[in-house]
Amino acid sequence: MSKDPELRPAPMQTEDMDSLRALATQLRVDSIRCSTNAGSGHPTSSLSAADLMAVLLTRHLRYDWEQPALPNNDHLIFSKGHASPLLYSMYRAVGVVEEDELLNTYRQFGARLQGHPTPVLPWVDVATGSLGQGLPVAVGVGLAGRYLDKLPFHTWVLCGDSELAEGSMWEAVDKAAYYKLGNLTAVVDVNRLGQDGPTELQWNMDAYARRVEAFGAQALIIDGHDISQIDDALSRATSDLDKPTVILAKTIKGKGVPEIEDQNGWHGKALPADMAEKAIAALGGPSSVRVTTRPPEPGTPAITPGTHVSVTLPDWKVGDKVATRAAFGAAVSALAARPEVVVLDGEVGNSTHAGDFEEVAPERYFEVFIAEQQLVAAAIGLSVRGYVAFASSFAAFLVSRPFDFIRMAGVSEVGIRLVGTHAGVEIGQDGPSQMALEDIAAMRAVHTSTVLYPADAPSTAQLVSAMADTPGISYLRATRGAYPVIYGPDEQFPLGGSKVHGAGADDQVALIGAGVTLHECLAAAEQLAESGIRARVIDLYSVKPIDVDTLRRTCLETDGRIVVAEDHYAQGGLGSAVLEALASANTPKLHIALLAVRELPGSGEPKDLLNAAGISARHIAAAARDLVMD
Amino acid sequence: MSKDPELRPAPMQTEDMDSLRALATQLRVDSIRCSTNAGSGHPTSSLSAADLMAVLLTRHLRYDWEQPALPNNDHLIFSKGHASPLLYSMYRAVGVVEEDELLNTYRQFGARLQGHPTPVLPWVDVATGSLGQGLPVAVGVGLAGRYLDKLPFHTWVLCGDSELAEGSMWEAVDKAAYYKLGNLTAVVDVNRLGQDGPTELQWNMDAYARRVEAFGAQALIIDGHDISQIDDALSRATSDLDKPTVILAKTIKGKGVPEIEDQNGWHGKALPADMAEKAIAALGGPSSVRVTTRPPEPGTPAITPGTHVSVTLPDWKVGDKVATRAAFGAAVSALAARPEVVVLDGEVGNSTHAGDFEEVAPERYFEVFIAEQQLVAAAIGLSVRGYVAFASSFAAFLVSRPFDFIRMAGVSEVGIRLVGTHAGVEIGQDGPSQMALEDIAAMRAVHTSTVLYPADAPSTAQLVSAMADTPGISYLRATRGAYPVIYGPDEQFPLGGSKVHGAGADDQVALIGAGVTLHECLAAAEQLAESGIRARVIDLYSVKPIDVDTLRRTCLETDGRIVVAEDHYAQGGLGSAVLEALASANTPKLHIALLAVRELPGSGEPKDLLNAAGISARHIAAAARDLVMD
Repeated sequence: MSKDPELRPAPMQTEDMDSLRALATQLRVDSIRCSTNAGSGHPTSSLSAADLMAVLLTRHLRYDWEQPALPNNDHLIFSKGHASPLLYSMYRAVGVVEEDELLNTYRQFGARLQGHPTPVLPWVDVATGSLGQGLPVAVGVGLAGRYLDKLPFHTWVLCGDSELAEGSMWEAVDKAAYYKLGNLTAVVDVNRLGQDGPTELQWNMDAYARRVEAFGAQALIIDGHDISQIDDALSRATSDLDKPTVILAKTIKGKGVPEIEDQNGWHGKALPADMAEKAIAALGGPSSVRVTTRPPEPGTPAITPGTHVSVTLPDWKVGDKVATRAAFGAAVSALAARPEVVVLDGEVGNSTHAGDFEEVAPERYFEVFIAEQQLVAAAIGLSVRGYVAFASSFAAFLVSRPFDFIRMAGVSEVGIRLVGTHAGVEIGQDGPSQMALEDIAAMRAVHTSTVLYPADAPSTAQLVSAMADTPGISYLRATRGAYPVIYGPDEQFPLGGSKVHGAGADDQVALIGAGVTLHECLAAAEQLAESGIRARVIDLYSVKPIDVDTLRRTCLETDGRIVVAEDHYAQGGLGSAVLEALASANTPKLHIALLAVRELPGSGEPKDLLNAAGISARHIAAAARDLVMD
Repeated sequence: MSKDPELRPAPMQTEDMDSLRALATQLRVDSIRCSTNAGSGHPTSSLSAADLMAVLLTRHLRYDWEQPALPNNDHLIFSKGHASPLLYSMYRAVGVVEEDELLNTYRQFGARLQGHPTPVLPWVDVATGSLGQGLPVAVGVGLAGRYLDKLPFHTWVLCGDSELAEGSMWEAVDKAAYYKLGNLTAVVDVNRLGQDGPTELQWNMDAYARRVEAFGAQALIIDGHDISQIDDALSRATSDLDKPTVILAKTIKGKGVPEIEDQNGWHGKALPADMAEKAIAALGGPSSVRVTTRPPEPGTPAITPGTHVSVTLPDWKVGDKVATRAAFGAAVSALAARPEVVVLDGEVGNSTHAGDFEEVAPERYFEVFIAEQQLVAAAIGLSVRGYVAFASSFAAFLVSRPFDFIRMAGVSEVGIRLVGTHAGVEIGQDGPSQMALEDIAAMRAVHTSTVLYPADAPSTAQLVSAMADTPGISYLRATRGAYPVIYGPDEQFPLGGSKVHGAGADDQVALIGAGVTLHECLAAAEQLAESGIRARVIDLYSVKPIDVDTLRRTCLETDGRIVVAEDHYAQGGLGSAVLEALASANTPKLHIALLAVRELPGSGEPKDLLNAAGISARHIAAAARDLVMD
């Protein structure tokens, strides 16, 4: 991780200052031009940060623009994604985006220069635009650099001042300091004005600095329009290997266009054409300054993600009682054989069994404490660096607390793995605050998501292993209690598949469950058999993608009679997934009973709660009987 | 807001110290007894805070236990909800819970003494158990006390140290300081150990204090087992009227049971019966200390929530183009006539039109800045005090960022109103980071939720008004662009209703939309009419509850031919809601086409994005034609 002093930027000369000013002016002119052409966008938020980014781009960022995937490149994340005009103007200055594309496609339909940056651009790591996310994600990138790659790249994050009101930013500063991420620098563009008036702290730079220092990072207050001060701060930011830096740059929103400088009411507004023309002329007109950034420092990553290593999954004996969360712990520990697999814990690793991984690969186990937004953000950042990160906590918290981060991971189309344990009323005595009962609905609706809910240990282990190779967001829902192993060691569990139990050509009804309710369905089928009703059971372990073919065939064979039982609220969960799958399939008329949690549960024994919710074997059997008798 | 010095607690005497110690011991004994009887629970996390709560209960809390709804009562919120054994033991000490209930029902099925506290108990304001939520909610209670009720009650919050890793806690300290909530005190039980090992800062009390002070609150470091220090800190906490206080109490987890004191591995574990028996004996055995808390300070709330005032809603001319977000602003401003209506903004009030309310009732408009968790938490806290709080932001952030708070508001069964604007691909140029496309799925799945998605201004205004009187969580999704007013001033929009356009007995197909897609459906119906296909259109403005009767009748009349179009991802949204509604209804076989957003959108003109997603009029008409021709 040592920095080669030979590779540090030379002291600044007068001519450097001049060319930096010329670049900053060009970034301003281009930010105005592209947003005015588009008729929307955030020029004033770009203008305030133009000097900061001009100096960074020319003298500090180390990046090979022709090889954006090079592991040695620095990272540049615009946490204030609305300053996309500035970012794209920087791309023009380094020569990867042509003037024509910048001026004529920004924010247009089908263009890659979108309103907020997304990874459809090869130089963009993650989508931003939901404030308070870029810095937490950068913490994950920094963790990879320091602890896994062991490469000297630096991660630079341009932040807005408004977004420092998001708690997630403080989770990030805290974790960056805790993990001694000297390879991470946040540059905060403190332009005093938010979208709708002054920010909470306005230009109270000392207040910001006190917060940053209290959370363990180095705070540097500068004039964000003074080239020398910027250069000095960016140098200092890379000199402490054990402490992240937050540069607090006092800036003026709209800087460079006097009539709108520091004026409220100009957030997110393109300049009208006449104003733009006048402003551009006053800035000296368009230019074509071309920047050559410094090359990345050489080096080889300590870990090469993607190495293929064979993994031997654990196995279990049919009939043994094993919690699926324990199976997750065992499986992910087996996956530790793959050097790119990383596990993140939200201070519940002893309950989720994520902690099992720590025993075998402590160097790839990160404790994020109770900060689920940072937990998921770190997984996203690690994914940016090619790692396969499993983030886990109780399902109730893992899905709902960082849901905006999960949503944005969908926009980024990055790969993250989420394992939520202790789902549903099944958890019992701890009560409803700890019960995930809306997680399937929420997760199914996220772009790129895969949703898995296995019922036993072997299926869990195989699905955890599959998640490692699944693009996008994969979510596995695990159960607290121990239930019998159902499947033998040779059974396969492809994504989008299902398992059918006890099917016969003359089945009268199908019982569909997943996780804990699969066991209830199996018990219900036995009860029904005793009263002469032939029921098959479907283990819908893959909720998304879903096994449409098996569901359609089942429908045809049971004359549309189906019971779905789920330990989840009645909206958007397993039942809805089945209905959606069958809606477009050519099936007979459905006679379907949807058993789900419909009232607020309390504390109690799992079996009592499953009963009270009407999703236990006897309710499933009763619903099946009603359908058959109907 | 002045505190009557006559009513301050008298200086402590030796006998007070003795009785406080006796009470603390009893709280410990009872915490052990109830959790050991239950076989689960968090005795060690209760033991660390027993001294703190003994002093608070006896000498500082002002509460009439017979009248929990009294507006003058102090509030006591256990942000560390897992310390419920301690809370319930306090209830026993003040005489509202009998020993028998405590010992024999804790965590049992059907009992009100649940694993984590919920408002099924009349003295509990809100459910806790998801860490990092009690303090943010208390900020809302404090806002009500200082700015609305103008009553001198105090809000006390018992926090854990682990939960200080949650960014939401810092959003709360920040806002408490910004709003000068001298009526709010957080007592942090810094017992050094989390669930799975030491906390991040362990007993680094100074680090905590620096953070608290940097965020603007008074920090008091004490020994959390020293009665005098506790008493002094609690006194000082109520002496500054303009600054919230965070008492940082260094404590020992498991305090009072030497063999488990400060030992890892005892989080969330009941003592085995033999250990419990020994520990209780060593503590002197069970006792029946009875505490009389100080009475609340008299006073009359400046605002009496629930006063009925007639509200005149704005009206619009049919055909005028109005954005539903503008209608929200106009409607909520009209509702300002009701003194209990409050509006909270996440620094986007100029876009959401929440800012319109500020013009008419600035004293009931709170700027929360970009901190959506605190935004929703404040609404919950205001609801605890009887206010009707509307929290608004862009739908993408309003639902996903604080989703865990929304989930917990469901567990609390409190009333909050959420208005999310700029939903769906319809927003256009800003791109996918700003587009709520999973909000309906997430919100439908939340306990107590109502989900509304009106298509024009008058329906929006009426629904906003209805939300004010709707219990539970109500969510209204609003559109960015302006669309024609469809409905006249006399039209009614009951929750659970829908509007049918152009129905005839011989309709061949029904087109179902809401919000922006309703307009697309209407245009599609015209196109279909031109080619001789008779289509009716249903405005499904009430997504939950849903108008099952109309949907069923429609199904019967169109022979099951339905097209649903939604500006939302394909899972869990409008289409699923319709399928769920019809699943149990006795209808003919469905021939349904579900049009929804299925790929990641980019930037562009709204009309291009609606087209690209396949949810515009021509796609709806084409889908309808396919169904009719089939």
